[in-house]
Parts: sequence; structure tokens; C-alpha cells
Amino acid sequence: MNNKWQTYPLISAQLNNVNRCIQDQITCNNHDLQAALLTMANNGGKYLRPAILLTIGQICGAKRDNDQLVKLAASIEILHMATLIHDDIIDDSPKRRGTVSIQARFGKDTAVYAGDLLFTIFFDLLLDAVPGSEYLKVNAQIMRQILNGELGQMNQRFNTHQGLEDYLEDVSGKTAALFQLAAREGAHFAGAPAQDVTTATKFGHYLGIAFQMLDDILDYTGGQQLNKPVMEDLATGVYSLPLLLALQEEKVAKELRPLLAKRYQITAKDMQQVQQIVISAGAVDQSRQLAGQYTQRALDCLAALPDNPSRRFLEKMTKKLLKRTI
Amino acid sequence: MNNKWQTYPLISAQLNNVNRCIQDQITCNNHDLQAALLTMANNGGKYLRPAILLTIGQICGAKRDNDQLVKLAASIEILHMATLIHDDIIDDSPKRRGTVSIQARFGKDTAVYAGDLLFTIFFDLLLDAVPGSEYLKVNAQIMRQILNGELGQMNQRFNTHQGLEDYLEDVSGKTAALFQLAAREGAHFAGAPAQDVTTATKFGHYLGIAFQMLDDILDYTGGQQLNKPVMEDLATGVYSLPLLLALQEEKVAKELRPLLAKRYQITAKDMQQVQQIVISAGAVDQSRQLAGQYTQRALDCLAALPDNPSRRFLEKMTKKLLKRTI
Repeated sequence: MNNKWQTYPLISAQLNNVNRCIQDQITCNNHDLQAALLTMANNGGKYLRPAILLTIGQICGAKRDNDQLVKLAASIEILHMATLIHDDIIDDSPKRRGTVSIQARFGKDTAVYAGDLLFTIFFDLLLDAVPGSEYLKVNAQIMRQILNGELGQMNQRFNTHQGLEDYLEDVSGKTAALFQLAAREGAHFAGAPAQDVTTATKFGHYLGIAFQMLDDILDYTGGQQLNKPVMEDLATGVYSLPLLLALQEEKVAKELRPLLAKRYQITAKDMQQVQQIVISAGAVDQSRQLAGQYTQRALDCLAALPDNPSRRFLEKMTKKLLKRTI
Repeated sequence: MNNKWQTYPLISAQLNNVNRCIQDQITCNNHDLQAALLTMANNGGKYLRPAILLTIGQICGAKRDNDQLVKLAASIEILHMATLIHDDIIDDSPKRRGTVSIQARFGKDTAVYAGDLLFTIFFDLLLDAVPGSEYLKVNAQIMRQILNGELGQMNQRFNTHQGLEDYLEDVSGKTAALFQLAAREGAHFAGAPAQDVTTATKFGHYLGIAFQMLDDILDYTGGQQLNKPVMEDLATGVYSLPLLLALQEEKVAKELRPLLAKRYQITAKDMQQVQQIVISAGAVDQSRQLAGQYTQRALDCLAALPDNPSRRFLEKMTKKLLKRTI
């Protein structure tokens, strides 16, 4: 694991167990593909969602040797991996987690089935971890929300008139749903009272939205020094937060629309121009402010959960996410 | 439903309920896509797997108003649809069920998510139908088997040395697993004794293999009059049963190998030549014989189940499948 959390003694051992659980689960009769999936599971991931689940679990009183939480954390990371593999097909991404993406290495064909396989492994693991629990249904609903978010975003491609509401709805699905699930399951299966489960769920929701907003901001400010392709979304017609905010101002929108109208024909130079206009209009700063508000809401939720070292750790990480540069 | 079963009073009403259940389940916020998925669910399908599930259920004593069986039948058809949508991405298929395929109409991008969405709907419906049942786990395993079959087949592409065993293993996964599940669930949830459930499961397995063999045969004999593209599999490097059997004879294999060595560069004329060689070598007749053996095994299983009108109906349908021309 390429993992910042690794250094935090509170959860590092548990995260190792999550990693081991994922490794045990990933089996398939195409050995090259199996190796690539294992590489993906081992090397690049931040294990952010498992870390949230486990830490919220600890906040709510779970023991560190709680095996059920480890399995649930693994199931969420596997679901996340499945969506990443399918997203890379859509986005034609050559890279993922610092290495070549499954679709680039094996072709889109294998990548479709590889993602499907991870969906079934997710399902399988979940049935192992929480058989007969109402949370099976919760997971199915979250999966549906993620896909509706993805499809919703796809529907909005190249739409210069989409509002902040559409954006928030799609982001709530495609990104925040999984954060929300992680926090919710962490609290519930640690035995937290219903009110704390609700608070944890909200925490995950707000954190997930802030996380996506930061991702969108980095698309505008990441720069090549960070080894992240700038304006990746724009090239495929997905308008991220800074651009959407810039489009709200009619004067700025007038400058942007002719460039955006080129759609898939947009050039690298055009994209640089879009970037300049968006930054000059103050839309990146505005996005940062909005992300800060959502981070604050997440922190407010955390403050309502039991006070202990795990909570203080998660507060620190939540603030750090707002300042992340990758 | 474009449905031969429709005319059989024993199950027509139940199949209508399956169709209604599928319609209720398919909801997504991309309205064009929702419409296309509904069209796919309503127009083209033979509803073969639901029909097997319901008929086996009846053989084993289920009442015709058994709502659980209807939901399970719907879940299997939805899972089947999901795999079809993803298969069409892999095969670049322009058509599906007599109409334009999801990938051809909406692009591969949307088709990836559309299939995923159906996977989640399958999962969701299953949790509704049989919450807390060991059959959730069975379904997860079947899903894994299907994908391992697909990945296995992909692994064997262009391999002129694959044996009948490899073929049977892949087909057991990619096709027979779902037939097997349908028959097994029909028996189990009708309250059949364990031995009958095992027999029904075997019936589904053999029928599924015979079904796939027929599909492979039709790839060689379908002809344009049937509106089915001949040699569809060959163009993507998937070697179907007649070709595999022809390759077993060294003399025939020598004729075939130079043509097959062209891989994706194979021309329409080359494919016609392959077709001729395979047919002349008697490999299509040989395939028919093998399919007949599997059909007979399926019939033998049926004969061990309770004797009643539903069983006689399924015997008739099983024999008909061997003679199908589409």
C-alpha cells in the first residue's frame, strides 16, 4: 500500500489485514489479470475508504481485532477498485495508481470483465461479512447510487447550463456514496447508537463531497510537477466544479462558451485558455471556499461523536484532505 | 416479450409477472437509457431462464401465484441482460434481440455503466426475494463462475490447441451456470427435497451446455436467411465447438491453421473457407451429436423429477431447443 495512513499506529495493523483480505479474495483463472489486479490492490491505493471505516469504528468503540470491520473495509475498497477500472474504460485513462491501467494493459474488453469480477467479489465478501444483515440492502442501494451518479454525470457532458445542484447530486452518488457507506458501516458494526450512526453517515457524505471538490480543483491547479494531467475531465466533456462556477457568471461564460463548443475537438491550447479564464475569474478560489465549507460540516459531525484519540486522528486527516496536492 | 413460452398456459401468466417485475426494477435517471433497457427487457428476450425456473418450480409443487419465484426469475433475467450488454461491448455487436444494441446506440461508455446498473438491480432484487438465504451466496458464486467463464474464453482466443475440456469448462461458466441456477432455485424455493434440487441443478447444467453447443452450431449453419451473422465468433478469435472438433483431426487442422493464423486480419472469404472445411470434415454433425448427448442427459435428469404436466411440458421444450434454428 502506498499509504499515508500506514504510519499511524492506530490503524496501520488493521489496514494490513484489509490488504491481506483483498489479496485472498482476488482470484481468477487469467493469471496475468490476477497479477495486475493484485498490483492495483497493493501498490497504489490510499486505502482512504477502509481507513475511514476503521477509524469511525474505533471512535464508536470497536476493538482493533474486529474482523468483521476488516472484511467490510476490504469489500468497500474492492467496490471502489471495480468502479475505478470501469471509469478508466470510459475515460480512456492510460494510468491508474501510478502504474498502467487495466484497460491500457489488457484492453477494454478484459477491463469490462475485470471490473465485473470485482463486483462479484465485493458481493461475495459482503455476504461473508454481514450475512442476513439489512446492510446488504444498504450496499445494493449505494451501488445503485454510484452508478446513477456516473450516468448522471455522463448525461451532463458538455452541458454549459448545468447548475451546482446537478453537480452536487451527481457527486453525492459517484463519490460521496462510498465515503458515506464506509463511515456508516464503521459506526453501525462497532455497535454505535442510531444517532451516532446517522452522524457518521453525514460525516462521510460531507467528506466525500469535499474530497471530490478538491479533486476537481486539482484538475485545474495540479500542474505537471505533480504528475497529474491537468484538465483531464474537460477533454471528455465533464465539467468540474471550478468551470461550473465560472460559467455562472454571464460575462465569463461568454468567453468560455466558444471554446467549450468545440467539444471533443478542443485542443491543448484551448484547454489552457479555459484554465486561465477559470482561474482569473476567481472560480478556483471560490471552489476552495466551497470545499472548505463541506470540510467544516464534516468536522462538525465528527465533533458530535465520542471524543477519543481515534476521533482526533480523523479530525486531523479530514483537515489534511482539504490541503492535499494529489 | 418475443416469447414462444407465452402460448403455454402453464406459465404464461407467471412470465407476464416476471416481465412486470423487471419493468418496475429498471429505473435510472438517464431517461433514454432507461427506455432502451426497457425495450431490451420487453421486446427481444426468449425469457428462457425465467421459464426454466418457473417450470421446474411447478414440477416440484410450487403454486402458480408464488411471488418469490417470480422475483427470482426476474433477477436471473436481469443478470442475463447485464452480461449480454457487457458481452456486446466485447464483441462490438451492433444488434441485440433484433434491435440495436445498447453499446451501438449509446456507445461503449454508457454500456459499461448500464450493465453495471443491471448488476446492482439484480443484487437488489435478490435481497428482496430471498433475504438471509444461503442462496445469496450461491448467486454470488454463480456470478463469479460466469465471469471466470468469460475471462477463460477470452484467454483461449486464437488458441488452435484448446481441447474439448477447456471448452466445456468455459461454457459451464459463461452459459450453463445461469441455466443451472434457474433450475436449482426453481426446485429449492418450491420446497423440493434435497435430492430433487440436485437433480434439477444437473438438468440445468446439461441443458445449458446443449444450448451453447446449438448456438455454436448455428454460428456455422445459421445462414443469412435467419438474419443471424454467420461466423460471428470466429472474427473475434473465439473458436466455437464445430471448429474445435475439426481442429482435433490433424489433416483438417493443417488446412485450417494458415487461415486462422490471420487472426483479426481474417477476411470474409477466409471465413467462408473455414466454414466449408469445418462442414466438409463432418464437425458440424459431430457437434450435433454431442449436443444431442447433453440434451439426453438433461432429459434423464427430468425423468427423475416428479411426473406431472409441467414436467412433460419441460421435456417437450428441452427437445425443441435441440432443434431450434435461432
